[in-house]
Amino acid sequence: MERIRVGIVGGTGYGGIELMRLLLSHPQAMLHCLVSRSEAGRRVDAVFPHLRGHTDLMFEAEETADLTSCDLVFFATPNGVAMRQVPVLLENGVRVIDLAADFRLRDPDLWARWYGEPHACPELLQDVVYGLPELNRDALRDARLVANPGCYPTAVILAFLPLLRSGAAPLGALIADAKSGVSGAGRRAVVGNLLAELSENFKAYGVSGHRHLPEIKQALDAVAGQTRELLFVPHVVPMIRGIHATCYAQVAPDIDVQALYEETYQREPFVDVLPQGSHPETASVRGVNLCRIALHRQSESGHVIVLSVIDNLVKGAAGQAVQNMNLMFGLPEDTGLRYAPVVP
Amino acid sequence: MERIRVGIVGGTGYGGIELMRLLLSHPQAMLHCLVSRSEAGRRVDAVFPHLRGHTDLMFEAEETADLTSCDLVFFATPNGVAMRQVPVLLENGVRVIDLAADFRLRDPDLWARWYGEPHACPELLQDVVYGLPELNRDALRDARLVANPGCYPTAVILAFLPLLRSGAAPLGALIADAKSGVSGAGRRAVVGNLLAELSENFKAYGVSGHRHLPEIKQALDAVAGQTRELLFVPHVVPMIRGIHATCYAQVAPDIDVQALYEETYQREPFVDVLPQGSHPETASVRGVNLCRIALHRQSESGHVIVLSVIDNLVKGAAGQAVQNMNLMFGLPEDTGLRYAPVVP
Amino acid sequence: MERIRVGIVGGTGYGGIELMRLLLSHPQAMLHCLVSRSEAGRRVDAVFPHLRGHTDLMFEAEETADLTSCDLVFFATPNGVAMRQVPVLLENGVRVIDLAADFRLRDPDLWARWYGEPHACPELLQDVVYGLPELNRDALRDARLVANPGCYPTAVILAFLPLLRSGAAPLGALIADAKSGVSGAGRRAVVGNLLAELSENFKAYGVSGHRHLPEIKQALDAVAGQTRELLFVPHVVPMIRGIHATCYAQVAPDIDVQALYEETYQREPFVDVLPQGSHPETASVRGVNLCRIALHRQSESGHVIVLSVIDNLVKGAAGQAVQNMNLMFGLPEDTGLRYAPVVP
Amino acid sequence: MERIRVGIVGGTGYGGIELMRLLLSHPQAMLHCLVSRSEAGRRVDAVFPHLRGHTDLMFEAEETADLTSCDLVFFATPNGVAMRQVPVLLENGVRVIDLAADFRLRDPDLWARWYGEPHACPELLQDVVYGLPELNRDALRDARLVANPGCYPTAVILAFLPLLRSGAAPLGALIADAKSGVSGAGRRAVVGNLLAELSENFKAYGVSGHRHLPEIKQALDAVAGQTRELLFVPHVVPMIRGIHATCYAQVAPDIDVQALYEETYQREPFVDVLPQGSHPETASVRGVNLCRIALHRQSESGHVIVLSVIDNLVKGAAGQAVQNMNLMFGLPEDTGLRYAPVVP
Repeated sequence: MERIRVGIVGGTGYGGIELMRLLLSHPQAMLHCLVSRSEAGRRVDAVFPHLRGHTDLMFEAEETADLTSCDLVFFATPNGVAMRQVPVLLENGVRVIDLAADFRLRDPDLWARWYGEPHACPELLQDVVYGLPELNRDALRDARLVANPGCYPTAVILAFLPLLRSGAAPLGALIADAKSGVSGAGRRAVVGNLLAELSENFKAYGVSGHRHLPEIKQALDAVAGQTRELLFVPHVVPMIRGIHATCYAQVAPDIDVQALYEETYQREPFVDVLPQGSHPETASVRGVNLCRIALHRQSESGHVIVLSVIDNLVKGAAGQAVQNMNLMFGLPEDTGLRYAPVVP
Repeated sequence: MERIRVGIVGGTGYGGIELMRLLLSHPQAMLHCLVSRSEAGRRVDAVFPHLRGHTDLMFEAEETADLTSCDLVFFATPNGVAMRQVPVLLENGVRVIDLAADFRLRDPDLWARWYGEPHACPELLQDVVYGLPELNRDALRDARLVANPGCYPTAVILAFLPLLRSGAAPLGALIADAKSGVSGAGRRAVVGNLLAELSENFKAYGVSGHRHLPEIKQALDAVAGQTRELLFVPHVVPMIRGIHATCYAQVAPDIDVQALYEETYQREPFVDVLPQGSHPETASVRGVNLCRIALHRQSESGHVIVLSVIDNLVKGAAGQAVQNMNLMFGLPEDTGLRYAPVVP
Repeated sequence: MERIRVGIVGGTGYGGIELMRLLLSHPQAMLHCLVSRSEAGRRVDAVFPHLRGHTDLMFEAEETADLTSCDLVFFATPNGVAMRQVPVLLENGVRVIDLAADFRLRDPDLWARWYGEPHACPELLQDVVYGLPELNRDALRDARLVANPGCYPTAVILAFLPLLRSGAAPLGALIADAKSGVSGAGRRAVVGNLLAELSENFKAYGVSGHRHLPEIKQALDAVAGQTRELLFVPHVVPMIRGIHATCYAQVAPDIDVQALYEETYQREPFVDVLPQGSHPETASVRGVNLCRIALHRQSESGHVIVLSVIDNLVKGAAGQAVQNMNLMFGLPEDTGLRYAPVVP
Repeated sequence: MERIRVGIVGGTGYGGIELMRLLLSHPQAMLHCLVSRSEAGRRVDAVFPHLRGHTDLMFEAEETADLTSCDLVFFATPNGVAMRQVPVLLENGVRVIDLAADFRLRDPDLWARWYGEPHACPELLQDVVYGLPELNRDALRDARLVANPGCYPTAVILAFLPLLRSGAAPLGALIADAKSGVSGAGRRAVVGNLLAELSENFKAYGVSGHRHLPEIKQALDAVAGQTRELLFVPHVVPMIRGIHATCYAQVAPDIDVQALYEETYQREPFVDVLPQGSHPETASVRGVNLCRIALHRQSESGHVIVLSVIDNLVKGAAGQAVQNMNLMFGLPEDTGLRYAPVVP
């Protein structure tokens, strides 16, 4: 089989860097073109010396890049960029995975409200496949345009999915208290993300409303078949990578949640349900495409507590995008994604 | 006025170190004797070079230390130590503040269940004052024996106190999702607390049951006048100091929670209610005796989200102990505790 | 005595923030005006919530600020700003301490070469006092214009001073291998200083030539009375505060360097010579105005190794500036600077 | 070809953990037995959950482990263990790579002086091959017993090797100022290595004499053909992985050191000489088997400054051990070692 010819638009953010790492060692894909406005004309390994010895590619400007000859283009751009470039690629038969938020919400009005501008191609929104394989594996195989899920949504949806699908949590609000390393904020020059500001510090942010809230709610409501109150509070942890979602739900008293989760995920290659009472660590998934989940109940409580960890740049972004690529091109789903994390 | 003659038992843990820092610059207290089993006979500033130039004291063994001539003795020892030494001190007229958990639970059976041994002096438990000034200021003035609150309980109780006292949260479970820097685990040689294990990592721990749960519940139930379901989930943050409690409660729809909190705490010297929608950072209270609180509501939600930050070693331990000492000895409550944090 | 009326220009960088902390608790100074272009019109404690409860001041624009009625103005601005504003202040009788580099080099040509523009007031350079009290205490008492030393220069000059003044290191190159926390790079939005870039990372920078090299050389050559080869290599450590300079010099074989250093610094309030063979930690001086030094020799080596630590924002910037202010205004040198560091 | 049957003694330290990661994905090796005294009888992935899904192996006790049926045994044990077990393995035809220090020094008296006990099998010391492929590639192919170099020695020897081999640094002392992440101290429960002690802190240690000094000196003197004064100062950086050695040497004025280094290392698969003036970052080699080197000269200086970075657990330990295994068993030297680092 010929290798998949891959393009990346936005190769200099953390999502793009991670995509390059994964694709440079992927046995069935080849990087064909890398687009970066800011670094066009420079060798990739001059911009990112950690890639010396792994690629001779150069970043190209959007105008000169040969994207239409790719089989697949990943967008790892800021929100609002992909929606302006995707239609012409699709018309040329190029398939697309967008790692940004442009195609995640089905309702263009909701999108406009949360992202502050009208959507550029609302007519495409109904054909998008939301790229969470654990929800939409079959649809992904034939997808032309995939909306890769947000990092928080990946961790939170996988945490609640078995409860909602089975009807085991019929009552009350769902609460997702989520914590993320700072790479989730992207590779942008912002005073608030300096080491001197964030290290030895912890805080919540966006508590009154975060863009991942409607994305999570859309997926969970679809699974549950009804709308539910959902509280979502993100925090920033003084570390680079990793998301830990601590999720709370009221459950029917007779439910064996451990069995429910093990059964739901037993055939999933990238969801690992730990023994009851475990405490998954973000370090245990650092650099790998995996969600680890553990379940707890406190004495006499009607609630279950679900702990869910991922690497925000892998299962929460680039790794999941490669998993989706594998599905779209008929490859074994774990191609290029099977290796152990670097610990410690 | 003569200075208060102060003893510290357990001067080499993080609580003891912080007590020394605060008391060495306290204008009305003088360190009279420091007890450490492991470092007896060594100069304090040889064990802790950061104190060079601030003290000439030596650590003493328990047997030879002149504790009974102190006006006040702080215990900064592991759980189970103070309860064996406190009775004889009280008999000698020495007042005591215990920073460990020995006197925090009123019910000796509950204590035995959570701490794994019978209580050594259950007859004292009814006379203990729980040392949260915002709850028990008057009783503290005359207290002979003070149980200094745990770090998590301080952050969580202050977060829920206005809601429960006013009856503004009549329904549903209370949830306290709490995150702490690693100094909360103490200065003990444990593989799990090595930098190489914890840095660039995040996890929950003790989710199925943590000793601070009954302590929080005891205080909140007393305030509310009824028992409530409480979920408490602690996490460890890769930083040294700081606790951030994210607390969830269902509130009656017509309650102005911002006004309620501002009113409750307006005269409190060490609780700072931020403007609505703020995100308090643990760094903003690092090294100082202060709890900062902010309130949030998400759209259409019946819940309020309370963010509460303290320094676990100051308002969560040694600073609160000094605040209690000030009350017990008739000093202005903020004596020795008024200075700005070191930021960044 | 009336309090010193103090102005700060550039209150929103790390040097300015630290000056505010120190001056807000200084018993003999009062903050009179704070100039910030970017934050003019905002309350200080709205910009920096960690100062809530400590000040009601507002930042002012340069045009409206009443700097000429100050007794002393600190410049905590980027390089090249102070030299344009200082002359008019001096003419109005206001004394000045510049924390930037504008007045550190005596030779305006050398300044122009390293800082990339002609000096704006070269005629002032001969009257400047270099604000290292351990070198220039007497001159500082009458100084009108003080160049506060750079952070690296403070650590390195104090490390070599006794050797060069005594002639104990007559041979060979001096080597200063220095490591700094990232706050030394300032509070500027730069991708390279993001936590995600610097954490879990270590590197040298500016090895082929750093602006602190001529500053150190100027001071050391003046002390030694001759020019010496000096190698200076700075590194960035994944932490916020602290400088550790590891300094190498060939020494005459019969020199008792420990005695030499103890004697040199025995009356210095802010230099602490540790027992021979100690390893000073940057954490032991975090937040305090102090340089700790330790000396080592390796077997059969003709070299001495001097370890020197400071907090780059205190003894390396704002604390030293306050020490200089105390000298200039006839106060005890340690006024407002005597407190123990927060450890851990 | 049949896979190499590999044993690891000491699988629960950081060296052992890293060996497992590398060997579990090595296409020509298979883990045959894992010995751990402390964890005997437990599944590897129960002790190290990050390996769930990668192995079903169990840790075994030394007594019951089938080490003699291995082709190769790695020792990742504390110093002094391997020398007691190696002779019997060699007699059984098992080849050995020791990651500890037992076989690194040729002189048993020197070993005894630095390691505090007589060597258990001094007769083996002359047959050991020092496992730095860049020095001893040919000898490694036939080696029965390999002493895997220390982490600091790897970084420092590679930094000085071209200078000494070519005679380009004929004069003066060599200085190696080295900085390491804390995983270099091992996975031992020590108060000094707690996150609360090391984070936001920097210090030197062992300055008066570190065990890696004689190891470095032995190698460099052999290369140079003469004994040289060498100063070696290690420091601990608040991060997990990575060594940065900043090395100073006086060089003859007409030497083109950049060309010299590029030529020396042009065929080396795991040494990367960066363009002159670069600043290699430890993060650029995190998790990978690589040494990156850059060269600097400061104006008018007779010295060259060599910056050398490795991951202490990979090129400084387990990765280099696998590189040695590949050589010993006739495999391409980079088998299992070609992948890009996880950045950021």
